[in-house]
Amino acid sequence: MDERVREHARILVDWSARIERGDDVVLSVGPEAHELAVAVAAELGERGANVVTTYSSGEVSRAYLTSHDDDFQQGDHELALYERADAVLSLGGGRNTAAMADVPAETRQAHSKATEGVREARLDTKWVSTVHPTRSLAQQAGMSYEAYQAFAYDAILRDWESLAAQMAKLKEILDAGSEVHLVNEGTDLTMSIEGRIAVNSAASVDYDSHNLPSGEVFTAPEATEGYVTFDVPMTVNGQRVKDVKLVFEDGEVVSFEAEQGAEAIEEVLETDEGARRLGELGIGMNRGIDRITDNILFDEKMGGTVHLALGRAYDSNLPEGESGNESAVHVDLITDMRGESRLEVDGELVQKDGVFRWE
Amino acid sequence: MDERVREHARILVDWSARIERGDDVVLSVGPEAHELAVAVAAELGERGANVVTTYSSGEVSRAYLTSHDDDFQQGDHELALYERADAVLSLGGGRNTAAMADVPAETRQAHSKATEGVREARLDTKWVSTVHPTRSLAQQAGMSYEAYQAFAYDAILRDWESLAAQMAKLKEILDAGSEVHLVNEGTDLTMSIEGRIAVNSAASVDYDSHNLPSGEVFTAPEATEGYVTFDVPMTVNGQRVKDVKLVFEDGEVVSFEAEQGAEAIEEVLETDEGARRLGELGIGMNRGIDRITDNILFDEKMGGTVHLALGRAYDSNLPEGESGNESAVHVDLITDMRGESRLEVDGELVQKDGVFRWE
Repeated sequence: MDERVREHARILVDWSARIERGDDVVLSVGPEAHELAVAVAAELGERGANVVTTYSSGEVSRAYLTSHDDDFQQGDHELALYERADAVLSLGGGRNTAAMADVPAETRQAHSKATEGVREARLDTKWVSTVHPTRSLAQQAGMSYEAYQAFAYDAILRDWESLAAQMAKLKEILDAGSEVHLVNEGTDLTMSIEGRIAVNSAASVDYDSHNLPSGEVFTAPEATEGYVTFDVPMTVNGQRVKDVKLVFEDGEVVSFEAEQGAEAIEEVLETDEGARRLGELGIGMNRGIDRITDNILFDEKMGGTVHLALGRAYDSNLPEGESGNESAVHVDLITDMRGESRLEVDGELVQKDGVFRWE
Repeated sequence: MDERVREHARILVDWSARIERGDDVVLSVGPEAHELAVAVAAELGERGANVVTTYSSGEVSRAYLTSHDDDFQQGDHELALYERADAVLSLGGGRNTAAMADVPAETRQAHSKATEGVREARLDTKWVSTVHPTRSLAQQAGMSYEAYQAFAYDAILRDWESLAAQMAKLKEILDAGSEVHLVNEGTDLTMSIEGRIAVNSAASVDYDSHNLPSGEVFTAPEATEGYVTFDVPMTVNGQRVKDVKLVFEDGEVVSFEAEQGAEAIEEVLETDEGARRLGELGIGMNRGIDRITDNILFDEKMGGTVHLALGRAYDSNLPEGESGNESAVHVDLITDMRGESRLEVDGELVQKDGVFRWE
């Protein structure tokens, strides 16, 4: 086995999920993530964790969802599994990133709403999502398989402790700040972050950070005003979107346009009330990620980008007892700040043209 | 998709597992059973069942088991999953039937013992095990892939209602009988079946039958005396066994020999006390299965064979409230009756030279 796969598994289990003896772990495996699953299973066995391995396939989900009459129920067995789990490790990796492209939006939404309890229970665990580099992801990135592997492991196999220290600076600024102002081509947006807690997303549950790779600092904005253009092309629910422009009034999207994929954005916005408000402002700081590969797990962490998510806010951004924006969805969209741009907190310049003031 | 795969899925969901709206189903998928999983997911969606899809890989299990210190725990989350499940559909199909061949016996046994609760809970559901024909199974059978597919679907896609009616005859004889006597080359064995209930294994939970394909009538013997030779070569826990001879006294194996795979048999016998007693006497009646393919799911159903299982008895063979042989294992071994042989119940000839008296 490629030593990089073993190292990926070790970082996931130790640094990211902090797995301990006796932990009840759900290991979710994509159809092409088998090799990583073998490596992770070995690490989990060594640590004496208890494992249920689930299969996460877009094709299987599509077959189930499209043949159902949309009157979905939440399975008691699924709820019980996640309510009792201490950790959920998701190893993404399929054969076709568009496998679910033709599942109707109302079907996705109906299923998403019916299974909200499962999602809540999962978010209450030490959950970490990562991906095994696959040919399908290489294709989505427009890269050869070998080049994509090198890219992915460069992003994943980092010195996370040292990156975490760098990101602490930005967290300090956001925690102390009240208002964020983003200015970019097609963007002039203000958001309140008063009283919110920024997360130093260092790819570890100990930092309330649940993605591997990570390398962003994020918080939960509200009272958003103005407009923003997401110039980074993306895939949302299996559909390509490009140059999405959202206009906010009083925290809510009041109009939008998109050069491509307007339907996908409309579907998202119509999920529920919370889907029209922001749940996240994230600032990419992983300088190991040097190109957009059309995979949100990597793209949103790229140094010099900023992303905003429609929908659900993470509890980790809120003071104990308070709750943020609620929604069945959380959809990230990215704007590239590496042109002429400004990111200000309470009028102070933090990043100019994609470069932090301390860089 | 091959129409045979869709038909396989329909038989599994409707005839075998009797899935109904709202059933909480665990769908267990082998690494090469993906296509069947897609077809089954579509059937489950159509019927409005709730599904958790698990991944069953010998390589993942091996990695976990061999890196563990053998002090296994049963996961609360796994127990909860199976305790709440209404049905468990297992779609076998891997890349290497010997994937777990080097997992030490004591490791298997330790894990098997620690997770007995999960196994009990699973057996309390509408569980059905089937296999997707794979290249690995074709190889094990010494057959080409296409020929193996034809063989497998011939065994699976049957008129189960009509086969069930044929098998009812043998069930009547066994239910009324007290003693079974098997005579074959290297075999002279008597077993008590007094008060036990034969199962007409028609590949449906409505018949207390949990394998697809099926086509056997089985009961739970006790007080076994004599000797038996299993001349059909098999794979037990990843190891080849051939010409196993067991000698019974007072219901228990007192000595054994094997031309090949004696170690594997010894491992089984040493699991626990119940592993040295019989849990099952099964009589193959599926004339659609016309050759040994080194896969117990098919081999034991072949018309003209008889199998005996060391270990656990099924509750379905016992009157309400009574329990049969208890063990963490259930290992089937097969003897081919198609030479000079006799199968008698209370001294009456039922089968001679592999042919039933009514055939």
